[in-house]
Amino acid sequence: MNACYLGLDVGNSRLSAAIVGCDGRVRALRRCATPQATAAAVRALIELAVGAMGEGGARPLAAGIGFGGPVDLAASRVRGSFLAPGWADVPLGQIVAEGLGLPCFLANDANAAGLGEASFGAGRGASCLLYVNVGTGIGGAVIIEGRLHTGATSAAGEIGHFIVVPDGPPCECGKRGCAQALASGAALGRRARVLLGAGDWPSSLRAVQAGALTGRDVGEAARAGDALAGRVVSEAAGWLGIALANAGHLLDPERIVVGGGVAELGELFLGPLRASYRAHIFGPATQTPLLAAELGYDAGVIGAAAVAMSEQGAYAAP
Amino acid sequence: MNACYLGLDVGNSRLSAAIVGCDGRVRALRRCATPQATAAAVRALIELAVGAMGEGGARPLAAGIGFGGPVDLAASRVRGSFLAPGWADVPLGQIVAEGLGLPCFLANDANAAGLGEASFGAGRGASCLLYVNVGTGIGGAVIIEGRLHTGATSAAGEIGHFIVVPDGPPCECGKRGCAQALASGAALGRRARVLLGAGDWPSSLRAVQAGALTGRDVGEAARAGDALAGRVVSEAAGWLGIALANAGHLLDPERIVVGGGVAELGELFLGPLRASYRAHIFGPATQTPLLAAELGYDAGVIGAAAVAMSEQGAYAAP
Repeated sequence: MNACYLGLDVGNSRLSAAIVGCDGRVRALRRCATPQATAAAVRALIELAVGAMGEGGARPLAAGIGFGGPVDLAASRVRGSFLAPGWADVPLGQIVAEGLGLPCFLANDANAAGLGEASFGAGRGASCLLYVNVGTGIGGAVIIEGRLHTGATSAAGEIGHFIVVPDGPPCECGKRGCAQALASGAALGRRARVLLGAGDWPSSLRAVQAGALTGRDVGEAARAGDALAGRVVSEAAGWLGIALANAGHLLDPERIVVGGGVAELGELFLGPLRASYRAHIFGPATQTPLLAAELGYDAGVIGAAAVAMSEQGAYAAP
Repeated sequence: MNACYLGLDVGNSRLSAAIVGCDGRVRALRRCATPQATAAAVRALIELAVGAMGEGGARPLAAGIGFGGPVDLAASRVRGSFLAPGWADVPLGQIVAEGLGLPCFLANDANAAGLGEASFGAGRGASCLLYVNVGTGIGGAVIIEGRLHTGATSAAGEIGHFIVVPDGPPCECGKRGCAQALASGAALGRRARVLLGAGDWPSSLRAVQAGALTGRDVGEAARAGDALAGRVVSEAAGWLGIALANAGHLLDPERIVVGGGVAELGELFLGPLRASYRAHIFGPATQTPLLAAELGYDAGVIGAAAVAMSEQGAYAAP
């Protein structure tokens, strides 16, 4: 089967375009840094897509876009981005559709990545899948019987904004104590800075200039066995486990899949995450498998292509 | 259309049986107190059903049972009850089916009540409905496209066990800080006792013997304008609003419907509940309508009948 789809991923730091087969395999992939100005970013996205299409052989049947922020699915518009200005009310679906001459379907990026995992990754075959993406921020997705549950205002799956600690640390969304403010990559960096300032704990992180300390630094130090960094990662996983347990109580999913950069720490993060989930849920749901995502760095573009396949009923049978 | 269904509701304090038409109207209704011993309760339930069937005219096509505790839907068995011993692993669906000679479908009682509201009450026509029942305990339901989302282990909808305050007050489920421990009828009574003991606040509740003070007393005093009781109700609604906002972030429902005895306090409870929900969610989802249930005291039996209708594809078109 030669049919293929175009998957586009619009992140804060990176744009990606891929040609993806109905079996989920990537046939061509292009990436570039995200230009700061919105108009330049949209132009770069279309150029990237044209490049991938030239390399990928058959012409794609449709395009899916995963955008890193709230979207309006029915209108195919971006609502905005918490992290980058200039994206308020941009008709991205329509611009890309006209630029490429293809039907185009817009989705939130974590929703798309979750659908990718449900279709071709660690969530394959689950009747109900809860997906959570732990990167700089925290996003998520609910997939029921192989289809995205998008909700009444295209906002479903926002597990990063579950309030875990009422009146806790401030979040980019304007609220306090969200999972994203406690367990995202950005939160790891902030928490490490607080702990380093609060005592004389020995830590390899002291070699990093405090203002430049990121979640990635914390993750690398934790992997290398640094105790303070390990504590930061494990506490963050503990907070996220409470949000996942709450989501588990509501949905009782067959499987939970965890993706994104922080999740790539593997058992350093997933171990305490599972322990916290099981401590905060009751009954048979304590046994819900909590698994690492399988699509890795390509989840965004594969998922975006899966959104277009789902809209056109074009999945390969798993 | 003369077809009808039997709805059975098994509560901690009360058993109910009703004959319900495919339009959701109750044609016959019987109630009795729940006998303490499980075998006696099951016998009483079957007698009640036989009585309602004798009064209701046409023979029902099937029976639905709403049970006040965790169930195993596939096996049609009760898993147990947090509040009453003796219900562990009871094959209630099969016993009632054999006793009455009818197909019988078992559900959790809040799941059933939610399906009742989605089919015939305040949730009618919503593509995604979140239902929460605030009584002695707190239960809930997720209804998508008119069907119950029951989950992988029949445990979906347990919004009462969302952890709202990590390490908060203990809950019947064994965890701490659950919505049920902060915002149920039982929690209202407990919180009022704490406040009465902690200061010299004037309150009509001082006339009630402290050990006997219930959520119902608090509700009645709040209705009558007692400031301390009003504060207890409003704080409880504030905690539940956080759980609902978290559930709203995950599902982005078209509507939220609130039923149960505590919800019957009306705007005294729903007003601060809405305010808390809106303060703890972001984006267009802040506008999600949060409505009082419409089926009142009969929601349990109508919902149980709706479970059987749903299983047999027998809804009247709304």
